Amino acid sequence: MMIIMRNDATTEEIKAIVARVEDYGLSAHISTGVERTIIGAIGDGRLVYKDQFMHMPGVDRVLPISRPYKLASREFKPTNSVFRMDGMKIGGNGVVIIAGPCSVENREQLLETAMAVCEAGAHALRGGVFKPRTSPYSFQGLGEAGLELLAEAREKTGLPIVTEVMSVRQIPILKQYVDVLQVGARNMQNFSLLHAVGESNHPVLLKRGMMATVEELLMAAEYILSHGNQRVIVCERGIRTFETATRNTTDINAIPVLKSLTHLPVILDPSHGTGHWEYVTAVARAGIAAGADGLIVEVHPRPGEALSDGSQSLRPERFVDLMKQIRSVAQAVGRSIAPVPGSDTKDEEVLQVRMEG
Amino acid sequence: MMIIMRNDATTEEIKAIVARVEDYGLSAHISTGVERTIIGAIGDGRLVYKDQFMHMPGVDRVLPISRPYKLASREFKPTNSVFRMDGMKIGGNGVVIIAGPCSVENREQLLETAMAVCEAGAHALRGGVFKPRTSPYSFQGLGEAGLELLAEAREKTGLPIVTEVMSVRQIPILKQYVDVLQVGARNMQNFSLLHAVGESNHPVLLKRGMMATVEELLMAAEYILSHGNQRVIVCERGIRTFETATRNTTDINAIPVLKSLTHLPVILDPSHGTGHWEYVTAVARAGIAAGADGLIVEVHPRPGEALSDGSQSLRPERFVDLMKQIRSVAQAVGRSIAPVPGSDTKDEEVLQVRMEG
Amino acid sequence: MMIIMRNDATTEEIKAIVARVEDYGLSAHISTGVERTIIGAIGDGRLVYKDQFMHMPGVDRVLPISRPYKLASREFKPTNSVFRMDGMKIGGNGVVIIAGPCSVENREQLLETAMAVCEAGAHALRGGVFKPRTSPYSFQGLGEAGLELLAEAREKTGLPIVTEVMSVRQIPILKQYVDVLQVGARNMQNFSLLHAVGESNHPVLLKRGMMATVEELLMAAEYILSHGNQRVIVCERGIRTFETATRNTTDINAIPVLKSLTHLPVILDPSHGTGHWEYVTAVARAGIAAGADGLIVEVHPRPGEALSDGSQSLRPERFVDLMKQIRSVAQAVGRSIAPVPGSDTKDEEVLQVRMEG
Amino acid sequence: MMIIMRNDATTEEIKAIVARVEDYGLSAHISTGVERTIIGAIGDGRLVYKDQFMHMPGVDRVLPISRPYKLASREFKPTNSVFRMDGMKIGGNGVVIIAGPCSVENREQLLETAMAVCEAGAHALRGGVFKPRTSPYSFQGLGEAGLELLAEAREKTGLPIVTEVMSVRQIPILKQYVDVLQVGARNMQNFSLLHAVGESNHPVLLKRGMMATVEELLMAAEYILSHGNQRVIVCERGIRTFETATRNTTDINAIPVLKSLTHLPVILDPSHGTGHWEYVTAVARAGIAAGADGLIVEVHPRPGEALSDGSQSLRPERFVDLMKQIRSVAQAVGRSIAPVPGSDTKDEEVLQVRMEG
Repeated sequence: MMIIMRNDATTEEIKAIVARVEDYGLSAHISTGVERTIIGAIGDGRLVYKDQFMHMPGVDRVLPISRPYKLASREFKPTNSVFRMDGMKIGGNGVVIIAGPCSVENREQLLETAMAVCEAGAHALRGGVFKPRTSPYSFQGLGEAGLELLAEAREKTGLPIVTEVMSVRQIPILKQYVDVLQVGARNMQNFSLLHAVGESNHPVLLKRGMMATVEELLMAAEYILSHGNQRVIVCERGIRTFETATRNTTDINAIPVLKSLTHLPVILDPSHGTGHWEYVTAVARAGIAAGADGLIVEVHPRPGEALSDGSQSLRPERFVDLMKQIRSVAQAVGRSIAPVPGSDTKDEEVLQVRMEG
Repeated sequence: MMIIMRNDATTEEIKAIVARVEDYGLSAHISTGVERTIIGAIGDGRLVYKDQFMHMPGVDRVLPISRPYKLASREFKPTNSVFRMDGMKIGGNGVVIIAGPCSVENREQLLETAMAVCEAGAHALRGGVFKPRTSPYSFQGLGEAGLELLAEAREKTGLPIVTEVMSVRQIPILKQYVDVLQVGARNMQNFSLLHAVGESNHPVLLKRGMMATVEELLMAAEYILSHGNQRVIVCERGIRTFETATRNTTDINAIPVLKSLTHLPVILDPSHGTGHWEYVTAVARAGIAAGADGLIVEVHPRPGEALSDGSQSLRPERFVDLMKQIRSVAQAVGRSIAPVPGSDTKDEEVLQVRMEG
Repeated sequence: MMIIMRNDATTEEIKAIVARVEDYGLSAHISTGVERTIIGAIGDGRLVYKDQFMHMPGVDRVLPISRPYKLASREFKPTNSVFRMDGMKIGGNGVVIIAGPCSVENREQLLETAMAVCEAGAHALRGGVFKPRTSPYSFQGLGEAGLELLAEAREKTGLPIVTEVMSVRQIPILKQYVDVLQVGARNMQNFSLLHAVGESNHPVLLKRGMMATVEELLMAAEYILSHGNQRVIVCERGIRTFETATRNTTDINAIPVLKSLTHLPVILDPSHGTGHWEYVTAVARAGIAAGADGLIVEVHPRPGEALSDGSQSLRPERFVDLMKQIRSVAQAVGRSIAPVPGSDTKDEEVLQVRMEG
Repeated sequence: MMIIMRNDATTEEIKAIVARVEDYGLSAHISTGVERTIIGAIGDGRLVYKDQFMHMPGVDRVLPISRPYKLASREFKPTNSVFRMDGMKIGGNGVVIIAGPCSVENREQLLETAMAVCEAGAHALRGGVFKPRTSPYSFQGLGEAGLELLAEAREKTGLPIVTEVMSVRQIPILKQYVDVLQVGARNMQNFSLLHAVGESNHPVLLKRGMMATVEELLMAAEYILSHGNQRVIVCERGIRTFETATRNTTDINAIPVLKSLTHLPVILDPSHGTGHWEYVTAVARAGIAAGADGLIVEVHPRPGEALSDGSQSLRPERFVDLMKQIRSVAQAVGRSIAPVPGSDTKDEEVLQVRMEG
């Protein structure tokens, strides 16, 4: 942490800062410049409160230096985290595609979609039963009744299930039915929920909040990791900006930035990132080209009848086309589509060992 | 809802839209323009899914017309909502000031602050015991142990207590101890929590999310109202923008905008809105000048030792000065500081009756 | 400037940084921390290119420490700059109100507005003749023909004239006709124009770009100051954010932030800041309450017929009301409305001397 | 245009709106809903001022329907615009790469870079001689002296030259020396400059403003097109958001959005879009994968010595690698790298004719 003094700070003020730094068990290094003095507080600054210095007389600004997360950082763990969630392996060379409807609406809709995305080569099925909706008058999801349908879809297709968890008390029942707990964008800083999914030890797909920086996303991941859960996937899903031509602004920069800062698998949601099905495939290609480890894509057999997110859902035939294009782009960047659950994955695993070695 | 067709839409496509509109029990009005056709769907559109039209052939865009909230709107209830929370009355002509530390840290700090803000004329005491912190390594609050301290502070000062609720399971115990449940900015779209505080029938202070629009804030209020709780205060606390000179950007426009759109009391948090104590008083004055019904302000006896938000906390003597300045600005805009809890408030109430009659 | 090394930086890499710092004639101070080394470059860093260090091996980040502007800073000149522009004095205790139509449309409209704002107590008349319009198909202003009308309005009312300059070649003629050259938000980083108005030595009203930080606004002012022109007023006029309820988001924080960072007069434009006449007066009050030295407000006799910005223009009778309210708020914060041009201002000047002394 | 009345609008107020709509030579279609009445103004609305309706009694909101640009729209011209700028053809199936230093610094630096990017397969050379710099104390470019160096570089490499124009008076000399006039992000709404480059009839590379919407970018292009210049390339270069991990946020969505809205060639600047050389290649790949027609990339032989933008410039060997990767991604999406200037381009042109036929 660097404490930058005002250009009219007195010697006494500087001494008081040094004393406070030393109170925290850190050592203080003083740089006396032409215009002003800067005091470096050297040591593990994670527990020191920057705010406590900002109020001291003579202080102009305080700049943190250390990154505030550790377990999530690539400095802490340089090799990619690769892990399995039921049959699906993520974080390796193979690109993983999670697909399915925004909401589970009924048996026919879910099974039809599940069969379609399975045949097209998807690795996991998404589908919400607890839905965070802006309006209290919108469809709120089937709730627990939807979980039986998801279980049936898994049995029929063999695909692991990804579904959103909205509150702590839903965790026990979700763990019985689903393979990956998704923490949605609006709950990215619901710290009670992060704490609880951290303790659940169930794989987590953590979506970036629409207002969250990359650093805050990694801090949210740190919450989960620090409660003992190592299987966290982080997901860029578009941020909120002034642009209104699309629902959100896909922060494509975040893909290489996250890959450089963290060892966790990084995926992209081009459906929420754009909000319009016409743009989903182009942005999905961009995500893989930028280095994402996978995608999560909304698919609906009849988007015009969807109870949520219809405008950004692909019809199954368009999803088949997306898979084909993604396969081509993945190869262009030296990757492949991951083997589907149930197929022989030996070669791939060998490769991983070598890469991580 | 207006459905705007592409300029090459066919007659069949237009007919299909009309049929769908009528399926929803709405009537369709067609405007055939030089460039394109527009179809108005007339009726209560709150339950119709805009997305369902966006996928139909020939559709260019769909524009909602009705405001998506009702119970929160001034169109629905033209007069200001005025209600009591323990001794504090809010929403009337009198401006209400809530003050106290960011976090309850210990008995001495809390009681010292409580006495100071009470003497300065504040109407309620704020203080968090469950703290939403970006870092898992930061102070997370005293938890339930802090509630006894808040109860003691209330007993000593007579001030009603405002504290943050972070999860559904904290509601029962908080209801026993505190007068107002605060829903924080990061939980503004934690719909499980909104639902639960709606059912709690306890007064709620709802803070705007840092990346939420005014409309989304009112939709969040609608969640609470639609579950039967009428006592909701909405609070502007700064939004996230590209500007880095301040922690957030106080959206001062939101004050008159909210006052025109909703009947609920509207307050401002200049502490989070700026993030720097030097700017708090100036922005507090601005909030009252713009028409806010109150303020929520962070005060700490020794900000340099605060475990959270020290840089934006006022020392007690600066808070005394803020109160003096707010009194002056309130008078300049035809308002007054509300009587403090326990004082005779008869005249004020008579005034309210007249204003609302 | 602080150069923060990666945690795996080698001794050679650190030595190379030190050598480069010394090449620039600065001295290097090294702080060796537990996790990483930080090198402070001490001296006048304004001419050193941060980018040049970012490419050197072993560097993690480079943080500037000095503020990048000097002439505009309050550290350089602690007392408020107070100056005259024709009859109008700005920057002192008296609040200054500039009012008039967005565009000069015709003689009748301009003179009617000018008389109305003069009678209501305004200190200067605004009115554009060169209009920056988003669409090439919108009204582009009367051009030079409008200048004669402005001259006539000045003669009739005695009010100094503020008008926008859009390109360098318009400066000579504008200097003949108008008292203050306004640089619009879209041209805030048109550096050719800033350079030229700096050399013009004519008073300048510099509006903040809708995408500019407070620091960039002060850098733009620095351009003008560094070319020899000391009479610069900076104007907050709303920034672009995700919020769509208003045209822009008035950054009310910027008022106290600017007042603390610069000695230049700071005014607010509540018309562009909100974009809706209903909110203009409330936000104008907020601006004065927050410490602004003045306002610039759009007024039109028949807003429904205005060729630009009608939705944010006040009718004259509403402007009369605004003036009354502003007078009241100004007094509440220890200020007054400045004497109008032509009145006896002796006492005011004496006051200034005392304040600045 | 749709005029949405308040729910308490009177019959007289509605009649007045209809009369005003008809005054403009448009026809009015009235939809009477359960809650409110909506009036559609049918006809060419480009010249009608939305603001003029917003002030009329009883009006709640006014929504534009027509897109405000025409010449730039794909509705107006459905096939891609393909055009030559000296030897470089853009807008066809072949992807075009423009590369070179941010600033022309001296003869050695420019020629070394020009030779390197030429050998790596670039199609044009970029290099600024007039530099828009945030600080008046930063390097402002070599000015006209730099143009001779650019001419020499063109002669040596055969590459056409792209350089930035900052003011109207620079256009005549730039036309003599350079092949493409670049309008920078900070000047995207410098309407005097847009007007002048429109009349210049010289190819223009128009960069999106950092806070401009896609629609405003196309309106800026419309300015140029409406003054008779058809050769306009639009360039996404990152927008300003709350994220600070990168210099700007590359709006990758804008690539497919622009390709669907306009027939003009669309390119991406991953250097400004990210601000860090480590991320440039990943985002360049993403841009081509998303459908961009080309890239503009900053290259410097010794980024650590660059006088501007060093942190985002690639060394020549990294640019060679970028070209290789882009070739691979372009093929994956059914495109190719365009033939370099001077090579036989017959097949490519035949292909274009077929695509556009």
